[in-house]
Amino acid sequence: MPYFDAASSVPLHPVARQALQASLDEGWADPARLHREGRRARLLLDAAREAAAEAVGCRPDELFFTPSGTHALHSGISGALAGRRRVGRHLTVSAVEHSAVLHCAESWRADGGTVTEAGVDRHGAVDAAEFAAHLRADTALACLQSANHEVGTLQPVAEAAAACREAGVPLLVDAAQSLGWEAVPGDWSLLAASAHKWGGPAGVGLLAVRKGVRFAPRGPADERESGRSPGFENIPAVVAAAASLRAVRAEAAAEDARLRELVDRIRARVPQLVPDVEVVGDPVRRLPHLVTFSCLYVDGETLLHELDREGFSVSSGSSCTSSTLTPSHVLRAMGVLSEGNVRVSLPAGTRAEEVERFLGVLPGVVAGVRERLGAPASAGSAGSAGSAGSAAEGDVAGAGQGSPLTVDAVGRLCPVPVIELAKVIGDVPVGGTVRVLADDEAARLDIPAWCAMRGQEYAGEPEPGVYLVRRKV
Amino acid sequence: MPYFDAASSVPLHPVARQALQASLDEGWADPARLHREGRRARLLLDAAREAAAEAVGCRPDELFFTPSGTHALHSGISGALAGRRRVGRHLTVSAVEHSAVLHCAESWRADGGTVTEAGVDRHGAVDAAEFAAHLRADTALACLQSANHEVGTLQPVAEAAAACREAGVPLLVDAAQSLGWEAVPGDWSLLAASAHKWGGPAGVGLLAVRKGVRFAPRGPADERESGRSPGFENIPAVVAAAASLRAVRAEAAAEDARLRELVDRIRARVPQLVPDVEVVGDPVRRLPHLVTFSCLYVDGETLLHELDREGFSVSSGSSCTSSTLTPSHVLRAMGVLSEGNVRVSLPAGTRAEEVERFLGVLPGVVAGVRERLGAPASAGSAGSAGSAGSAAEGDVAGAGQGSPLTVDAVGRLCPVPVIELAKVIGDVPVGGTVRVLADDEAARLDIPAWCAMRGQEYAGEPEPGVYLVRRKV
Repeated sequence: MPYFDAASSVPLHPVARQALQASLDEGWADPARLHREGRRARLLLDAAREAAAEAVGCRPDELFFTPSGTHALHSGISGALAGRRRVGRHLTVSAVEHSAVLHCAESWRADGGTVTEAGVDRHGAVDAAEFAAHLRADTALACLQSANHEVGTLQPVAEAAAACREAGVPLLVDAAQSLGWEAVPGDWSLLAASAHKWGGPAGVGLLAVRKGVRFAPRGPADERESGRSPGFENIPAVVAAAASLRAVRAEAAAEDARLRELVDRIRARVPQLVPDVEVVGDPVRRLPHLVTFSCLYVDGETLLHELDREGFSVSSGSSCTSSTLTPSHVLRAMGVLSEGNVRVSLPAGTRAEEVERFLGVLPGVVAGVRERLGAPASAGSAGSAGSAGSAAEGDVAGAGQGSPLTVDAVGRLCPVPVIELAKVIGDVPVGGTVRVLADDEAARLDIPAWCAMRGQEYAGEPEPGVYLVRRKV
Repeated sequence: MPYFDAASSVPLHPVARQALQASLDEGWADPARLHREGRRARLLLDAAREAAAEAVGCRPDELFFTPSGTHALHSGISGALAGRRRVGRHLTVSAVEHSAVLHCAESWRADGGTVTEAGVDRHGAVDAAEFAAHLRADTALACLQSANHEVGTLQPVAEAAAACREAGVPLLVDAAQSLGWEAVPGDWSLLAASAHKWGGPAGVGLLAVRKGVRFAPRGPADERESGRSPGFENIPAVVAAAASLRAVRAEAAAEDARLRELVDRIRARVPQLVPDVEVVGDPVRRLPHLVTFSCLYVDGETLLHELDREGFSVSSGSSCTSSTLTPSHVLRAMGVLSEGNVRVSLPAGTRAEEVERFLGVLPGVVAGVRERLGAPASAGSAGSAGSAGSAAEGDVAGAGQGSPLTVDAVGRLCPVPVIELAKVIGDVPVGGTVRVLADDEAARLDIPAWCAMRGQEYAGEPEPGVYLVRRKV
């Protein structure tokens, strides 16, 4: 049963399992104690710290273990901001950071700080020069991911780090998605990562804080991990995390080449096999194992369920698959379609046959979902009048001269508003306008994206929930 | 090799190991995902929550997993304080709480809150009526441990909880030391505990927040654990924690009886076997497996090392064994001797022969440490003139009429100041005074404690670091 959601979490690497089991017997005691069990635990902890630091590319005394990548980000960001509070209260982040970073930014803003977000291009890539332009005299910290977790695009961390050094601003790199593949390049100041992303156990994050970076830990004092991370040390897990990081790094070059080819196959063939699909993310500067695409006229949750029934585990940034019913902020920042979104992230060891099976199953699954939703038939034809189902199926009104044709999709979740739009676009003359009324948050992203994919003109949102589309073709 | 430091951490319980290994294969995925691996992880997490909630005595939706007991305390205290900020900013705690609680209190005070501490008696017990007297109209939260981690004394949590209900103040119980033995009695509002204390793995704390308790999680938003605990769920560890809690509870009654008898043996025999020892903590209302005693004229760190060489792992609240060189705040609050302090906490399964071996080894070890320190010979004789080594060994001055005899122990660590005091007390007449100059923090505790043990009068500290002792016998 192929599991294609490696970017969420991967099964324990065999080396992690072995190290975990071995250190359960040796690493359970309190490493602060003077007795032999404590000293043994301390030795394991020190050795794990050295191994992890080497893989990160920092000194062991710059590397701290936290209970998760989220904790590493929370502690790293709050500690760096507090350490530089005399400099100022400005934080800059990219718009496509992980929600853990963006939630820190929200919390910082709520506490009276200032936050600016560097935007991204349609591939989800930050522009290093634009990122640098966000650095100000009062900037306490800048945050940039090494690679995007939803679309796989690599970010220009080395260039951003150089610009930050130049400006005297520390750069925190969220390396959660890339650390298993390679060390983060460049002269960064802080780094955060998460072991379960590379095959280590849950319960371990890494926080690196370079010597010389001003850092003031927040929250109640705790002497563990040099005051950077409170709570009893989870030594067996930390040992397993460090051992597996070394192990996956040893396999990284070969797996990178293998998975990169499989992802290229998916990137090339999905648009051939499935009509009305947008493959997103940078095709070249990307993580080796991750590809994301969105399917017009498809409900992401149903798509995930159908793929799951076929044995494929994938993830989605569609709004209907999130508890908040909002589409992924990454897709939003990129300005790409969010409906029918599928993220395929291949774990190490994925076989070509599994990918082929996926490619074999996907077209039928998408077609089935579309059929049940009453979606327009296929690409190219959606723009031609009369082809896309009868207008009677939509709540269409005022198609006459003078007032624009209106599609009322209030209360309907995506992809319904876009489907209804596609059904009626042929009913207005070229140059004519369709008004779509929709209160699903995703419409704001998907209606413009549909226009871009279909060559129609998105004419704006004159009032919230009212979208204007002008027929061009 | 007997390990007698169960109150710090215990080896993994066989049931925990079994559950951990089994769930490594099933519990590595993100339980928020819709695919089968995610659903499987979610099932394990839900089952663990139910099992843990049952053992805690709360509803599953009142129970949250955190990365450690420290995190449970930090989140529980900060969340409860924030949830009741309109009521007021007063926090009350006992003086003998775990440092994780006291550090929260310090941090709260630094943020502008008010903190009061309920004192304890010489056994380390909080008086429920005194605790209740700390509850005020502006009290946002009260914290009380179920049992003390250093001396084993049980606290009156049920009575304190009743008083808190009466006053409309939530009570948070730190149940770290007792939860493996029994559910916390009474109508508490919040509870925190730590799995590695009962034989669960590191990396798991429990936070219970009863429905109806106002709670506002602090820090950046995170949807995991109902917003109570950020970070990727550590499901294998959580499963192991819950399973082992049930397992140790099933064995608790029998182990309680067995270990209680062994501790009674230590409590009775140590004072018979070793001169000048004070056994501290409540002899009856106590944890079954824990006993603490302090040895006059002994340096705690050396004692620990010597016991370690003999194969016994224990812990100590003496100042010389802490990184801050301050004696345990628990011993200080109790007003008992801190020098030569030993905490013996027996893990489940400890055999009577191991305790007997310990009792066989201890007298020689203590005598050896005392001999090397040049300590006075033995109990009873220390007060009689001329018996306790020659005054020439101490830095003694002004023994004549008029000005009091002075012992200059500045720059010397405990137990040296007390040893020097004991050596010269016989040189002053009954009714005469010795002045001890000492800058070791522990002297403030140990000189009065020595006086109480020796029947001499402690006449105060007229200026910092100057202690007056009047000879009575």
